[in-house]
Amino acid sequence: MKLILITLFISLTAESLFAVDVSGGVDQALFTINNIWMLIATFLVFIMHLGFATLESGLTRAKNTVNILFKNVSIIAIGLLTYAICGFNLMYPGEFSLGNFFGFAGWGIASPPDVAGLIEYADGSYTYFTDFIFQAMFAATAATIVSGAVAERIRLSSFLVFSTIYVAFIYPIAGSWKWGAGWLDQMGFYDFAGSTLVHSVGGWAALIGASVLGPRIGKYHKNGTIPIMGHNLPLATIGVFLLWFGWYGFNGGSVLSADPGPVSFVFVTTTLAAAAGIIGAMTVSWTLSKKPDLSMVLNGSLAGLVGITAGADVIMPMYAVIIGFIAGLLVVLSVIFFDRIRIDDPVGAISVHLTCGIWGTLAVGIFSSEYSFLIQLIGVVSYGLFCIASALVIFYAIKITIGLRVSEEEELIGLDLGEHEMEAYAGFQIFTVE
Amino acid sequence: MKLILITLFISLTAESLFAVDVSGGVDQALFTINNIWMLIATFLVFIMHLGFATLESGLTRAKNTVNILFKNVSIIAIGLLTYAICGFNLMYPGEFSLGNFFGFAGWGIASPPDVAGLIEYADGSYTYFTDFIFQAMFAATAATIVSGAVAERIRLSSFLVFSTIYVAFIYPIAGSWKWGAGWLDQMGFYDFAGSTLVHSVGGWAALIGASVLGPRIGKYHKNGTIPIMGHNLPLATIGVFLLWFGWYGFNGGSVLSADPGPVSFVFVTTTLAAAAGIIGAMTVSWTLSKKPDLSMVLNGSLAGLVGITAGADVIMPMYAVIIGFIAGLLVVLSVIFFDRIRIDDPVGAISVHLTCGIWGTLAVGIFSSEYSFLIQLIGVVSYGLFCIASALVIFYAIKITIGLRVSEEEELIGLDLGEHEMEAYAGFQIFTVE
Amino acid sequence: MKLILITLFISLTAESLFAVDVSGGVDQALFTINNIWMLIATFLVFIMHLGFATLESGLTRAKNTVNILFKNVSIIAIGLLTYAICGFNLMYPGEFSLGNFFGFAGWGIASPPDVAGLIEYADGSYTYFTDFIFQAMFAATAATIVSGAVAERIRLSSFLVFSTIYVAFIYPIAGSWKWGAGWLDQMGFYDFAGSTLVHSVGGWAALIGASVLGPRIGKYHKNGTIPIMGHNLPLATIGVFLLWFGWYGFNGGSVLSADPGPVSFVFVTTTLAAAAGIIGAMTVSWTLSKKPDLSMVLNGSLAGLVGITAGADVIMPMYAVIIGFIAGLLVVLSVIFFDRIRIDDPVGAISVHLTCGIWGTLAVGIFSSEYSFLIQLIGVVSYGLFCIASALVIFYAIKITIGLRVSEEEELIGLDLGEHEMEAYAGFQIFTVE
Repeated sequence: MKLILITLFISLTAESLFAVDVSGGVDQALFTINNIWMLIATFLVFIMHLGFATLESGLTRAKNTVNILFKNVSIIAIGLLTYAICGFNLMYPGEFSLGNFFGFAGWGIASPPDVAGLIEYADGSYTYFTDFIFQAMFAATAATIVSGAVAERIRLSSFLVFSTIYVAFIYPIAGSWKWGAGWLDQMGFYDFAGSTLVHSVGGWAALIGASVLGPRIGKYHKNGTIPIMGHNLPLATIGVFLLWFGWYGFNGGSVLSADPGPVSFVFVTTTLAAAAGIIGAMTVSWTLSKKPDLSMVLNGSLAGLVGITAGADVIMPMYAVIIGFIAGLLVVLSVIFFDRIRIDDPVGAISVHLTCGIWGTLAVGIFSSEYSFLIQLIGVVSYGLFCIASALVIFYAIKITIGLRVSEEEELIGLDLGEHEMEAYAGFQIFTVE
Repeated sequence: MKLILITLFISLTAESLFAVDVSGGVDQALFTINNIWMLIATFLVFIMHLGFATLESGLTRAKNTVNILFKNVSIIAIGLLTYAICGFNLMYPGEFSLGNFFGFAGWGIASPPDVAGLIEYADGSYTYFTDFIFQAMFAATAATIVSGAVAERIRLSSFLVFSTIYVAFIYPIAGSWKWGAGWLDQMGFYDFAGSTLVHSVGGWAALIGASVLGPRIGKYHKNGTIPIMGHNLPLATIGVFLLWFGWYGFNGGSVLSADPGPVSFVFVTTTLAAAAGIIGAMTVSWTLSKKPDLSMVLNGSLAGLVGITAGADVIMPMYAVIIGFIAGLLVVLSVIFFDRIRIDDPVGAISVHLTCGIWGTLAVGIFSSEYSFLIQLIGVVSYGLFCIASALVIFYAIKITIGLRVSEEEELIGLDLGEHEMEAYAGFQIFTVE
Repeated sequence: MKLILITLFISLTAESLFAVDVSGGVDQALFTINNIWMLIATFLVFIMHLGFATLESGLTRAKNTVNILFKNVSIIAIGLLTYAICGFNLMYPGEFSLGNFFGFAGWGIASPPDVAGLIEYADGSYTYFTDFIFQAMFAATAATIVSGAVAERIRLSSFLVFSTIYVAFIYPIAGSWKWGAGWLDQMGFYDFAGSTLVHSVGGWAALIGASVLGPRIGKYHKNGTIPIMGHNLPLATIGVFLLWFGWYGFNGGSVLSADPGPVSFVFVTTTLAAAAGIIGAMTVSWTLSKKPDLSMVLNGSLAGLVGITAGADVIMPMYAVIIGFIAGLLVVLSVIFFDRIRIDDPVGAISVHLTCGIWGTLAVGIFSSEYSFLIQLIGVVSYGLFCIASALVIFYAIKITIGLRVSEEEELIGLDLGEHEMEAYAGFQIFTVE
């Protein structure tokens, strides 16, 4: 810790911070607009955390709301701070020390000498600090994905330990393979904004977490599934719209500049895929259940968004519609599938982020002539193996040591009273559903 | 459909997409900033859909919340996809084939050959894709306006059919008369960002829809009106603030560039009109009812915003205050008026969007020396006639065929259980108000 | 009033508005991007008002929700309009007429002749209108801070009178001392984005208001404090995330240009301080109470944000972490302290904005070598004396004349029914907590 402090202090002296050297031939105005767009994308990705917090709490029961909100507020703090301490330098190591699988550029965020704010950094697109803060916001989203799948039964401290390890080490190491110019990048794997690197990486951990924990009490009976309804669908809807809103920064910022062609193109593909995801989920769920299911169309839009994320800059608009529509179908079928194999995911996080993350990554190999389906598949499988193994080790280590699941009694009265001695809706008459 | 796919595929080949040709003399940095501002405006207009969803559900009863949220999520999907399929090319036909009343540039979004992303498009202000996506977000808002006025009693499928037709054909054809350079544009009619083209067009359909449907059960009795209170005023407040927030993109983006003078001017007029609308509505409602009514000041800010939208770039700031203040007065009086003639509009959508849309359009003819009151009036009346006729035909056609209104029984138990078999607030004890 | 109208009308003739003169040697593209960034920051600061509205209503009781929402909607209208009428010209008088303590440039917003929109204004960074609207959004936030501390017992009209006077005169006069180039600015006092000028100025008034009003009925008993729980913690969480989101405009816009170095640097320090504030508040509250308290971590993030605001552009990132962490500790201890001395602040506004505002201002003198701790302290004390005196005079004047506090009966049934004859959650079964 002391070392980090010193490192940071030495490298960040105020004098060198703000000078913009325009002698490099890069236009200062273009540098300024590129940089500010990346910062705008940063605050858009930030608000996705409110999207996750409201979506997850809206789709679960009132008695566990404080707990879910607490997790989401904590995760963003943990994600940002660990990314500053080690994540950023694990993900963008510069040079790898272990083949092209692992590298580490040192503790703390230390602007390269004389480069902070300089136009030379990142080919004149943004500053070192912009680079860090945009990527840091991404890091925290991966951990948040897990939160929904393990909701309503995981111990708070156990979840915080898991998240810290996963976001500090697993996410950035996995990320370095592609975005840090590691082995998958060199092989030709493509993932524009993170269908795999963010959503599947979170989704695999969500799958393992939900499996290791087991289902919530009362969810599965001998004769089938008893749906446990979310307690606040306006809140869930706020969540979905905010996630979609933030996705304009998630995908739009992944262009890594304000270049008019690609950014506007990405806005179109992202938007159309989200819209088509709604229609896809509506079609299949209305057909299967005979009733228009709000939570399905909400997840349908997220499915479309996750689906287009891997190829938002290379997929033609009408293919984006097709990818989104299929993602919308898939998310509904996936929710049904996971319920059938009795993996209890209260908010559908696995179906949205893992199933559609895989679909989106493979879709790049199908709908874009530039990329190979096989290599996309290799990428998907590699990330799957690494994340499954990592999540299993961490979750089991926690289970053996401090324990993973709250007591049956606590689960029944709810984690808000059990873990926090607080109520989310003081004064409201609420029936506690088992 | 197949034709559309082919059209899109042919015209959008990846190679031509992203090249920015700076030889045209337009500054690349300026092009980039203009384009990114339009995209920022796009995501701001997007979040207005969450504003509508929360405002409308907050101002209606808990038993119809899922239904309203479902409609709002569906509409944005329908609006965006139909605009891609035909709306954009109906609204901006390039050339008219039927006088200056109707034109159609073909199915699908097809970037002009070699122009996608090129700086020549739109005088170097933004790309083809930016043009499309900004306008597409607008299209969906018009349909959403109707949603609130017909809430709590319209059949879901009937509403979806109406919206699809209205947003796919009526909105863009009407829009082409002014923004597509049609006959009203040539006559000198002015509507900067859509007091008439968006708000009145939605508002007229809202009026017709509410009239054809009739009032909610229990709203009007022999001796007067029984107010039906909204179930969640924090939700409604979230809606109003998000709409105001999004309006900075709605009006700010309608400058169609990031030109510092007009954009900052529009921010000032828009803001002051919204603030004055609050004071106007507060003054008249507090005077009339002796009590400070939250829903009235909320609608007052929207009234101010709708009122300034037609002339946000040409109205002097203090006149913006006057226009907003009068809009705030008008919206309260209009709500009272429509209750008196027993047209039941649960959220006040007709008063906000139609009454104040007309006021704002006429106000341009009063407060700006450049535009004629008479021509503004001709525009208002023309749009009124076209929208009334269109909405009447569509609503009646639906009424005759699949039916328009839910059963009395379903209305009483609520559309959430009736149409969706879901509750918005599972676990909460809620008294169902008739 | 008539004078204002004339002033505005004369100075704002349409012809002079939009001309951008590029002959001054300032790059037009840079001017455009700087200006648009300030406008983006403006809408970010705007949405902080929704953050305050939801945070304050979430942390108080359901029976006072309409009242709090009404206050927040009114304040933004009052703040914006009074700032247009006199605040802007009190805060940026150009020349002082009473030493360097007071100056006034005239009623209304009147663009300097031939300068509106011109690149010469503000060294080519933004237009006159951008300058006004960005500062106007700030003004309204100061008044909103008071709202939370006096919640659940102040009369609506009394609060509106207080806010109007405080935001129209006290805030801008105090602001002129530093940002208007007044005596504290000349002495070398530093407050980058308003730890003192906004947060403490609001915080002192909150302290005086809460003291003069006295605690809510039932809060303090012989043997200690009875916590009164907030009624809607998801709403409070929405508030905190929106405030954090808006802070990227509050701090990021205070750079007063889009200059890549400082803006990205400010994003990093702001973000890390907020994250560290969460961890700080979590640490101390979990240690003291043995339970993870959601409202404390929520206030912890705001504490970190307030704490970094005075020095966001000059504090090294790791020091930002330390400042934020300490702010997180302080806010918890401060909440406990104010409860011990029986000053009842329902939402913790005094602890967040005053305590951490003071801390952040002093921290600039500790962690930055450029600024003097002593001068920072002089600034803190000067603002304290001026705001305490002003708030005392205004609150007592109101108390003597129209009265400050609602009747005991009204407080018990709640201000929603008492002041507004409305319920925030019509249909919900709610237990009224005393």
